[in-house]
Amino acid sequence: MAYYAAPIARLVEELEKLPGIGHKTAQRLAFHILDMSDERAGKLADSIIKAKSSIKKCSVCCNLTDVDPCSICSSGTRDKTVICVVEDPRGVVSMERIREYKGMYHVLHGAISPMEGIGPDDITIKELLKRVDGGEVKEVILATNPNIEGEATAMYISKLLKPLGVKVTRIAHGVPVGGDLEYADEITLAKSLEGRREL
Amino acid sequence: MAYYAAPIARLVEELEKLPGIGHKTAQRLAFHILDMSDERAGKLADSIIKAKSSIKKCSVCCNLTDVDPCSICSSGTRDKTVICVVEDPRGVVSMERIREYKGMYHVLHGAISPMEGIGPDDITIKELLKRVDGGEVKEVILATNPNIEGEATAMYISKLLKPLGVKVTRIAHGVPVGGDLEYADEITLAKSLEGRREL
Repeated sequence: MAYYAAPIARLVEELEKLPGIGHKTAQRLAFHILDMSDERAGKLADSIIKAKSSIKKCSVCCNLTDVDPCSICSSGTRDKTVICVVEDPRGVVSMERIREYKGMYHVLHGAISPMEGIGPDDITIKELLKRVDGGEVKEVILATNPNIEGEATAMYISKLLKPLGVKVTRIAHGVPVGGDLEYADEITLAKSLEGRREL
Repeated sequence: MAYYAAPIARLVEELEKLPGIGHKTAQRLAFHILDMSDERAGKLADSIIKAKSSIKKCSVCCNLTDVDPCSICSSGTRDKTVICVVEDPRGVVSMERIREYKGMYHVLHGAISPMEGIGPDDITIKELLKRVDGGEVKEVILATNPNIEGEATAMYISKLLKPLGVKVTRIAHGVPVGGDLEYADEITLAKSLEGRREL
């Protein structure tokens, strides 16, 4: 005897495939969805379909967008001489949130990771080189994640970019603002010392 | 400047409305969905729509089902003289999982909770009384949750059922199997002492 009616089981199964959603959570979400009004559930399903069908990669920066080129690439007020390279679209969101960066972006859609079989050709490095080769770009800021894959990717890209005569920078490593020295790990602290600046 | 393209923002917003899904998780799920194949995303959206449109309350036990009466109510092999009363469809799943209970169910769809403004008329107590009034039922097992609302609901229902001449029982409270006495709270331990049985 199946515990659930078939459509509920199918819904639980689909929800379970999402990252970080286990069986119990999927079950809770499924019953919550069944509890929703038809309109709200419809909106949820529709938002999935619409997002999937309308979102493409921007032909310039490779960020996910519904218009091509994306709103940042087609903006007239942004500094086209600086490109900030991030691993994924969430990186763009994080950078935009600080409200200080006014340059362009380039989304790699991953980082080089031999362990996971991701090589330089699997991410959008070629597209980045083509943009820099155009000549308009003066600085490329490498804002890949501060982990092994992110560092390796930054090193790899910087070696390819330097011969093109462009300034290549890496975001600073150091102790987070508002943190406590006591809780900073040794490597972070060492990096923050290495990167110290005169006041 | 919006951080996301509109369809992504809408998807994040819809996912955020789900219980236990905060903004960061919604964002992670949204980008995961955008990373899925069109087919898999379609299946997810479709499972929501299908579940919403095909799932109704069983006219007998009020459990959620796609056929009416549900597979348990229409089964020929189950004991129709016993009804196990649970708060929600998940209670049915939990009971079925033990593979020992062969009676019927009644799903209340909630518990009496004056704090949340849920009274006896807001849950399916009337439907339960009607079923018991039919005369076939010999025992009603109250398996509402072991918290204040569940206990209150069990007490309330038992008072209504007793005049009908039916046996009313409550599932046992006690120390969980595999647990450690040290970690049992005082109330649970007191209940387990109160409910002790001769060996």
